[in-house]
Amino acid sequence: MNDVIFETVITTQSADGRPHVAPMGVRYQDGGVVLMPFKPSATLDNILATGAAVLNVLSDTRVFAGCVTGRKTWPLLPAEKITGVRLACALSHLELRLAEQSDDAQRPVLHMARVHAVSHAPFIGFNRAQAAVVEGAILVSRLRMLPPDKVISEMAYLQIAIDKTAGPEEHEAWGWITEAVAQHGTSLKEKS
Amino acid sequence: MNDVIFETVITTQSADGRPHVAPMGVRYQDGGVVLMPFKPSATLDNILATGAAVLNVLSDTRVFAGCVTGRKTWPLLPAEKITGVRLACALSHLELRLAEQSDDAQRPVLHMARVHAVSHAPFIGFNRAQAAVVEGAILVSRLRMLPPDKVISEMAYLQIAIDKTAGPEEHEAWGWITEAVAQHGTSLKEKS
Repeated sequence: MNDVIFETVITTQSADGRPHVAPMGVRYQDGGVVLMPFKPSATLDNILATGAAVLNVLSDTRVFAGCVTGRKTWPLLPAEKITGVRLACALSHLELRLAEQSDDAQRPVLHMARVHAVSHAPFIGFNRAQAAVVEGAILVSRLRMLPPDKVISEMAYLQIAIDKTAGPEEHEAWGWITEAVAQHGTSLKEKS
Repeated sequence: MNDVIFETVITTQSADGRPHVAPMGVRYQDGGVVLMPFKPSATLDNILATGAAVLNVLSDTRVFAGCVTGRKTWPLLPAEKITGVRLACALSHLELRLAEQSDDAQRPVLHMARVHAVSHAPFIGFNRAQAAVVEGAILVSRLRMLPPDKVISEMAYLQIAIDKTAGPEEHEAWGWITEAVAQHGTSLKEKS
Protein backbone atom coordinates (compact mmCIF):
# COMPACT_ATOMS: atom_id res chain seq x y z
CA MET A 1 0.00 0.00 0.00
CA ASN A 2 1.14 3.50 -0.75
CA ASP A 3 1.64 5.07 2.67
CA VAL A 4 1.46 8.72 1.68
CA ILE A 5 -1.31 10.32 3.70
CA PHE A 6 -3.18 13.39 2.50
CA GLU A 7 -5.17 15.61 4.84
CA THR A 8 -8.62 16.11 3.33
CA VAL A 9 -12.19 16.61 4.54
CA ILE A 10 -14.75 13.83 4.11
CA THR A 11 -18.40 14.87 3.77
CA THR A 12 -21.12 12.27 4.25
CA GLN A 13 -24.87 12.10 4.85
CA SER A 14 -26.93 9.91 7.15
CA ALA A 15 -29.67 7.76 5.61
CA ASP A 16 -32.16 10.55 6.46
CA GLY A 17 -30.02 13.25 4.86
CA ARG A 18 -28.19 14.88 7.80
CA PRO A 19 -24.76 16.01 6.57
CA HIS A 20 -21.49 15.44 8.44
CA VAL A 21 -18.13 17.14 7.88
CA ALA A 22 -14.94 15.46 9.13
CA PRO A 23 -11.24 16.15 8.46
CA MET A 24 -9.48 12.88 7.64
CA GLY A 25 -6.07 11.64 6.52
CA VAL A 26 -6.61 9.44 3.45
CA ARG A 27 -4.59 7.23 1.11
CA TYR A 28 -5.00 7.19 -2.67
CA GLN A 29 -4.77 3.64 -4.02
CA ASP A 30 -5.51 1.93 -7.36
CA GLY A 31 -7.44 4.91 -8.68
CA GLY A 32 -9.63 5.00 -5.57
CA VAL A 33 -9.30 6.15 -1.98
CA VAL A 34 -8.77 4.22 1.27
CA LEU A 35 -10.58 5.65 4.31
CA MET A 36 -10.01 4.43 7.87
CA PRO A 37 -12.63 6.19 10.00
CA PHE A 38 -12.57 5.54 13.73
CA LYS A 39 -15.22 3.38 15.35
CA PRO A 40 -17.62 4.79 16.50
CA SER A 41 -17.95 7.84 14.19
CA ALA A 42 -20.67 9.52 12.16
CA THR A 43 -18.49 9.23 9.04
CA LEU A 44 -18.30 5.44 9.41
CA ASP A 45 -22.03 5.09 10.17
CA ASN A 46 -22.96 7.29 7.21
CA ILE A 47 -20.75 5.49 4.68
CA LEU A 48 -22.05 2.09 5.80
CA ALA A 49 -25.65 3.39 5.60
CA THR A 50 -25.41 5.14 2.22
CA GLY A 51 -22.41 3.52 0.52
CA ALA A 52 -21.19 6.98 -0.44
CA ALA A 53 -18.81 9.77 0.58
CA VAL A 54 -17.23 12.88 -0.86
CA LEU A 55 -13.51 13.67 -0.51
CA ASN A 56 -12.90 17.44 -0.45
CA VAL A 57 -9.48 18.92 -1.27
CA LEU A 58 -9.14 22.32 0.43
CA SER A 59 -6.84 25.25 0.93
CA ASP A 60 -9.25 26.94 3.39
CA THR A 61 -7.82 25.54 6.62
CA ARG A 62 -10.65 27.03 8.71
CA VAL A 63 -12.54 23.78 8.13
CA PHE A 64 -9.73 21.76 9.76
CA ALA A 65 -9.37 24.16 12.70
CA GLY A 66 -13.14 24.62 13.00
CA CYS A 67 -14.06 20.93 13.11
CA VAL A 68 -11.68 20.26 16.06
CA THR A 69 -12.95 23.35 17.95
CA GLY A 70 -16.70 22.70 17.74
CA ARG A 71 -17.41 24.53 14.45
CA LYS A 72 -18.86 21.71 12.38
CA THR A 73 -21.32 23.57 10.15
CA TRP A 74 -19.84 24.61 6.80
CA PRO A 75 -21.50 25.72 3.55
CA LEU A 76 -22.32 22.62 1.52
CA LEU A 77 -23.47 21.98 -2.02
CA PRO A 78 -25.06 18.84 -3.48
CA ALA A 79 -22.80 16.24 -5.08
CA GLU A 80 -23.26 15.78 -8.82
CA LYS A 81 -23.42 12.02 -9.44
CA ILE A 82 -24.06 10.52 -6.00
CA THR A 83 -26.48 11.31 -3.20
CA GLY A 84 -24.32 13.43 -0.95
CA VAL A 85 -22.77 16.82 -0.32
CA ARG A 86 -19.45 18.57 -0.88
CA LEU A 87 -17.89 21.61 0.79
CA ALA A 88 -18.63 24.87 -1.02
CA CYS A 89 -15.01 25.95 -0.42
CA ALA A 90 -13.44 22.79 -1.92
CA LEU A 91 -10.72 23.38 -4.52
CA SER A 92 -11.82 20.06 -5.96
CA HIS A 93 -13.89 17.10 -4.84
CA LEU A 94 -14.08 13.38 -5.53
CA GLU A 95 -17.40 11.56 -5.31
CA LEU A 96 -16.85 8.05 -3.97
CA ARG A 97 -18.81 4.83 -3.47
CA LEU A 98 -17.99 2.07 -1.01
CA ALA A 99 -16.43 -0.82 -2.96
CA GLU A 100 -14.97 -3.07 -0.26
CA GLN A 101 -14.47 -3.06 3.48
CA SER A 102 -12.52 -4.92 6.11
CA ASP A 103 -13.85 -4.53 9.61
CA ASP A 104 -11.59 -3.73 12.56
CA ALA A 105 -12.24 -3.12 16.26
CA GLN A 106 -10.89 0.45 16.04
CA ARG A 107 -10.49 1.52 12.41
CA PRO A 108 -12.30 -0.40 9.65
CA VAL A 109 -10.66 -0.06 6.21
CA LEU A 110 -13.03 1.26 3.56
CA HIS A 111 -11.97 0.98 -0.07
CA MET A 112 -13.82 3.69 -1.94
CA ALA A 113 -14.14 3.70 -5.74
CA ARG A 114 -14.03 6.96 -7.68
CA VAL A 115 -17.39 7.86 -9.25
CA HIS A 116 -16.78 11.47 -10.31
CA ALA A 117 -14.10 14.16 -9.92
CA VAL A 118 -14.69 17.91 -10.23
CA SER A 119 -12.22 20.79 -10.07
CA HIS A 120 -13.50 24.15 -8.77
CA ALA A 121 -10.46 26.39 -8.21
CA PRO A 122 -6.71 26.12 -8.76
CA PHE A 123 -4.18 25.26 -6.06
CA ILE A 124 -1.76 28.19 -6.05
CA GLY A 125 1.13 26.88 -3.97
CA PHE A 126 2.25 25.79 -0.53
CA ASN A 127 1.48 28.24 2.25
CA ARG A 128 3.42 27.71 5.48
CA ALA A 129 0.59 29.17 7.59
CA GLN A 130 -1.92 26.70 6.12
CA ALA A 131 0.42 23.86 7.04
CA ALA A 132 0.79 25.32 10.55
CA VAL A 133 -3.01 25.43 10.97
CA VAL A 134 -3.28 21.78 9.91
CA GLU A 135 -0.58 20.87 12.48
CA GLY A 136 -2.31 23.04 15.09
CA ALA A 137 -5.64 21.32 14.43
CA ILE A 138 -4.00 17.91 14.94
CA LEU A 139 -2.43 19.24 18.15
CA VAL A 140 -5.84 20.39 19.44
CA SER A 141 -7.34 16.97 18.70
CA ARG A 142 -4.60 15.41 20.89
CA LEU A 143 -4.44 17.96 23.74
CA ARG A 144 -5.46 15.43 26.39
CA MET A 145 -2.63 13.09 25.39
CA LEU A 146 0.19 15.64 25.27
CA PRO A 147 2.31 17.11 28.10
CA PRO A 148 1.63 20.88 28.52
CA ASP A 149 5.24 21.93 27.86
CA LYS A 150 5.22 20.06 24.53
CA VAL A 151 1.99 21.86 23.53
CA ILE A 152 3.49 25.25 24.43
CA SER A 153 6.70 24.66 22.48
CA GLU A 154 4.88 23.33 19.39
CA MET A 155 2.45 26.26 19.38
CA ALA A 156 5.37 28.70 19.61
CA TYR A 157 7.07 26.99 16.67
CA LEU A 158 3.92 27.00 14.51
CA GLN A 159 3.24 30.66 15.40
CA ILE A 160 6.33 31.67 13.36
CA ALA A 161 4.81 30.52 10.06
CA ILE A 162 1.49 32.17 10.98
CA ASP A 163 3.21 35.50 11.65
CA LYS A 164 5.20 35.37 8.43
CA THR A 165 2.81 33.96 5.84
CA ALA A 166 -0.85 33.90 6.99
CA GLY A 167 -3.81 35.63 5.37
CA PRO A 168 -7.18 36.39 6.97
CA GLU A 169 -8.47 32.78 6.71
CA GLU A 170 -5.38 31.36 8.40
CA HIS A 171 -5.43 34.05 11.12
CA GLU A 172 -9.06 33.21 11.90
CA ALA A 173 -8.32 29.48 11.99
CA TRP A 174 -5.24 30.02 14.15
CA GLY A 175 -7.31 32.14 16.57
CA TRP A 176 -9.67 29.19 17.15
CA ILE A 177 -6.69 26.92 17.77
CA THR A 178 -4.96 29.23 20.27
CA GLU A 179 -8.30 29.71 22.06
CA ALA A 180 -8.79 25.94 22.39
CA VAL A 181 -5.22 25.49 23.66
CA ALA A 182 -5.71 28.30 26.21
CA GLN A 183 -9.03 26.81 27.41
CA HIS A 184 -7.36 23.44 27.84
CA GLY A 185 -4.55 25.11 29.86
CA THR A 186 -7.12 26.83 32.11
CA SER A 187 -8.98 23.58 32.72
CA LEU A 188 -5.70 21.84 33.60
CA LYS A 189 -4.94 24.55 36.19
CA GLU A 190 -8.42 24.29 37.68
CA LYS A 191 -7.95 20.54 38.12
CA SER A 192 -4.55 20.86 39.77
CA MET B 1 -0.95 44.42 -0.21
CA ASN B 2 -2.19 40.93 0.48
CA ASP B 3 0.42 39.45 2.78
CA VAL B 4 -0.28 35.78 2.17
CA ILE B 5 2.93 34.19 0.94
CA PHE B 6 2.96 31.05 -1.20
CA GLU B 7 6.04 28.86 -1.58
CA THR B 8 6.63 28.26 -5.27
CA VAL B 9 9.57 27.74 -7.62
CA ILE B 10 10.53 30.47 -10.09
CA THR B 11 12.22 29.36 -13.31
CA THR B 12 14.04 31.94 -15.43
CA GLN B 13 16.55 32.05 -18.27
CA SER B 14 19.56 34.28 -18.86
CA ALA B 15 19.70 36.34 -22.05
CA ASP B 16 21.79 33.55 -23.63
CA GLY B 17 19.33 30.83 -22.59
CA ARG B 18 20.87 29.31 -19.43
CA PRO B 19 18.00 28.19 -17.15
CA HIS B 20 17.84 28.89 -13.42
CA VAL B 21 15.58 27.21 -10.83
CA ALA B 22 14.90 28.97 -7.51
CA PRO B 23 12.36 28.33 -4.72
CA MET B 24 10.68 31.60 -3.78
CA GLY B 25 7.90 32.87 -1.53
CA VAL B 26 5.54 34.96 -3.70
CA ARG B 27 2.45 37.14 -3.31
CA TYR B 28 -0.52 37.08 -5.67
CA GLN B 29 -1.84 40.60 -6.30
CA ASP B 30 -4.27 42.19 -8.78
CA GLY B 31 -4.31 39.13 -11.03
CA GLY B 32 -0.51 39.09 -11.21
CA VAL B 33 2.37 38.07 -8.97
CA VAL B 34 4.79 40.08 -6.83
CA LEU B 35 8.35 38.71 -6.69
CA MET B 36 11.02 40.03 -4.33
CA PRO B 37 14.25 38.29 -5.37
CA PHE B 38 17.36 39.04 -3.32
CA LYS B 39 20.11 41.20 -4.75
CA PRO B 40 22.36 39.78 -6.11
CA SER B 41 20.65 36.68 -7.56
CA ALA B 42 20.44 34.91 -10.90
CA THR B 43 16.63 35.14 -10.74
CA LEU B 44 16.79 38.95 -10.48
CA ASP B 45 19.41 39.25 -13.23
CA ASN B 46 17.45 36.95 -15.55
CA ILE B 47 14.11 38.72 -15.08
CA LEU B 48 15.70 42.13 -15.66
CA ALA B 49 17.48 40.78 -18.77
CA THR B 50 14.53 38.95 -20.34
CA GLY B 51 11.46 40.56 -18.76
CA ALA B 52 10.04 37.09 -18.16
CA ALA B 53 9.69 34.36 -15.51
CA VAL B 54 7.65 31.24 -14.87
CA LEU B 55 5.97 30.51 -11.52
CA ASN B 56 5.75 26.76 -10.86
CA VAL B 57 3.24 25.32 -8.37
CA LEU B 58 4.55 21.98 -7.09
CA SER B 59 3.79 19.10 -4.79
CA ASP B 60 7.19 17.43 -5.46
CA THR B 61 9.12 18.94 -2.56
CA ARG B 62 12.42 17.47 -3.79
CA VAL B 63 12.89 20.67 -5.79
CA PHE B 64 12.73 22.78 -2.60
CA ALA B 65 15.05 20.47 -0.66
CA GLY B 66 17.33 19.96 -3.66
CA CYS B 67 17.86 23.63 -4.47
CA VAL B 68 19.06 24.41 -0.91
CA THR B 69 21.39 21.38 -0.88
CA GLY B 70 23.22 21.96 -4.17
CA ARG B 71 20.85 20.03 -6.48
CA LYS B 72 19.85 22.75 -8.91
CA THR B 73 19.31 20.80 -12.12
CA TRP B 74 15.70 19.69 -12.64
CA PRO B 75 13.87 18.47 -15.74
CA LEU B 76 12.54 21.49 -17.61
CA LEU B 77 10.16 22.01 -20.50
CA PRO B 78 9.73 25.08 -22.72
CA ALA B 79 7.14 27.67 -21.72
CA GLU B 80 4.22 28.02 -24.15
CA LYS B 81 3.72 31.76 -24.70
CA ILE B 82 6.94 33.35 -23.44
CA THR B 83 10.62 32.58 -23.99
CA GLY B 84 11.38 30.59 -20.89
CA VAL B 85 11.15 27.24 -19.14
CA ARG B 86 8.92 25.53 -16.59
CA LEU B 87 9.54 22.56 -14.31
CA ALA B 88 8.46 19.23 -15.80
CA CYS B 89 7.04 18.22 -12.39
CA ALA B 90 4.89 21.37 -11.96
CA LEU B 91 1.23 20.75 -11.06
CA SER B 92 0.56 24.01 -12.83
CA HIS B 93 2.57 26.96 -14.07
CA LEU B 94 2.05 30.65 -14.70
CA GLU B 95 3.97 32.44 -17.45
CA LEU B 96 4.76 35.99 -16.36
CA ARG B 97 6.19 39.17 -17.82
CA LEU B 98 7.78 42.03 -15.90
CA ALA B 99 5.25 44.88 -15.72
CA GLU B 100 6.70 47.24 -13.10
CA GLN B 101 9.61 47.32 -10.67
CA SER B 102 10.75 49.29 -7.65
CA ASP B 103 14.43 48.98 -6.90
CA ASP B 104 15.71 48.28 -3.39
CA ALA B 105 19.19 47.78 -1.93
CA GLN B 106 18.32 44.23 -0.82
CA ARG B 107 15.07 43.05 -2.40
CA PRO B 108 13.67 44.87 -5.45
CA VAL B 109 9.90 44.47 -5.90
CA LEU B 110 8.96 43.03 -9.28
CA HIS B 111 5.32 43.24 -10.35
CA MET B 112 4.77 40.45 -12.84
CA ALA B 113 1.74 40.33 -15.14
CA ARG B 114 0.09 37.02 -15.99
CA VAL B 115 0.57 36.01 -19.63
CA HIS B 116 -0.58 32.38 -19.59
CA ALA B 117 -1.65 29.75 -17.05
CA VAL B 118 -1.53 25.99 -17.60
CA SER B 119 -2.68 23.16 -15.36
CA HIS B 120 -0.84 19.81 -15.64
CA ALA B 121 -1.97 17.64 -12.72
CA PRO B 122 -4.45 17.94 -9.85
CA PHE B 123 -3.53 18.93 -6.30
CA ILE B 124 -4.78 16.03 -4.17
CA GLY B 125 -4.59 17.45 -0.65
CA PHE B 126 -2.32 18.67 2.10
CA ASN B 127 0.49 16.28 3.02
CA ARG B 128 2.16 16.92 6.37
CA ALA B 129 5.48 15.49 5.16
CA GLN B 130 5.54 17.87 2.18
CA ALA B 131 5.02 20.77 4.57
CA ALA B 132 7.81 19.41 6.80
CA VAL B 133 10.20 19.25 3.82
CA VAL B 134 9.39 22.88 2.92
CA GLU B 135 10.10 23.90 6.55
CA GLY B 136 13.27 21.77 6.55
CA ALA B 137 14.47 23.42 3.34
CA ILE B 138 13.97 26.87 4.89
CA LEU B 139 15.85 25.65 7.99
CA VAL B 140 18.79 24.49 5.83
CA SER B 141 18.91 27.86 4.08
CA ARG B 142 19.26 29.52 7.51
CA LEU B 143 21.62 27.07 9.25
CA ARG B 144 24.37 29.65 9.74
CA MET B 145 21.96 32.01 11.52
CA LEU B 146 20.38 29.50 13.93
CA PRO B 147 21.66 28.14 17.26
CA PRO B 148 22.43 24.38 17.02
CA ASP B 149 19.94 23.37 19.74
CA LYS B 150 17.13 25.13 17.88
CA VAL B 151 18.04 23.27 14.68
CA ILE B 152 18.06 19.92 16.52
CA SER B 153 14.66 20.50 18.17
CA GLU B 154 13.02 21.73 14.93
CA MET B 155 14.36 18.76 12.96
CA ALA B 156 13.03 16.37 15.64
CA TYR B 157 9.61 18.03 15.43
CA LEU B 158 9.48 17.90 11.61
CA GLN B 159 10.65 14.26 11.62
CA ILE B 160 7.29 13.24 13.16
CA ALA B 161 5.30 14.27 10.07
CA ILE B 162 7.89 12.59 7.82
CA ASP B 163 7.60 9.31 9.72
CA LYS B 164 3.81 9.39 9.67
CA THR B 165 2.87 10.68 6.22
CA ALA B 166 5.81 10.73 3.75
CA GLY B 167 6.06 8.90 0.44
CA PRO B 168 9.24 8.12 -1.53
CA GLU B 169 9.64 11.70 -2.86
CA GLU B 170 9.39 13.22 0.61
CA HIS B 171 11.76 10.61 2.11
CA GLU B 172 14.36 11.41 -0.56
CA ALA B 173 13.98 15.17 0.00
CA TRP B 174 14.17 14.73 3.78
CA GLY B 175 17.35 12.65 3.39
CA TRP B 176 19.05 15.57 1.63
CA ILE B 177 17.94 17.91 4.42
CA THR B 178 19.16 15.69 7.28
CA GLU B 179 22.46 15.21 5.43
CA ALA B 180 22.94 18.98 5.10
CA VAL B 181 22.09 19.53 8.77
CA ALA B 182 24.54 16.78 9.80
CA GLN B 183 27.31 18.24 7.62
CA HIS B 184 26.74 21.64 9.16
CA GLY B 185 26.97 20.08 12.65
CA THR B 186 30.27 18.40 11.74
CA SER B 187 31.74 21.64 10.40
CA LEU B 188 30.67 23.46 13.59
CA LYS B 189 32.50 20.84 15.70
CA GLU B 190 35.64 21.10 13.53
CA LYS B 191 35.70 24.85 14.03
CA SER B 192 35.29 24.66 17.81
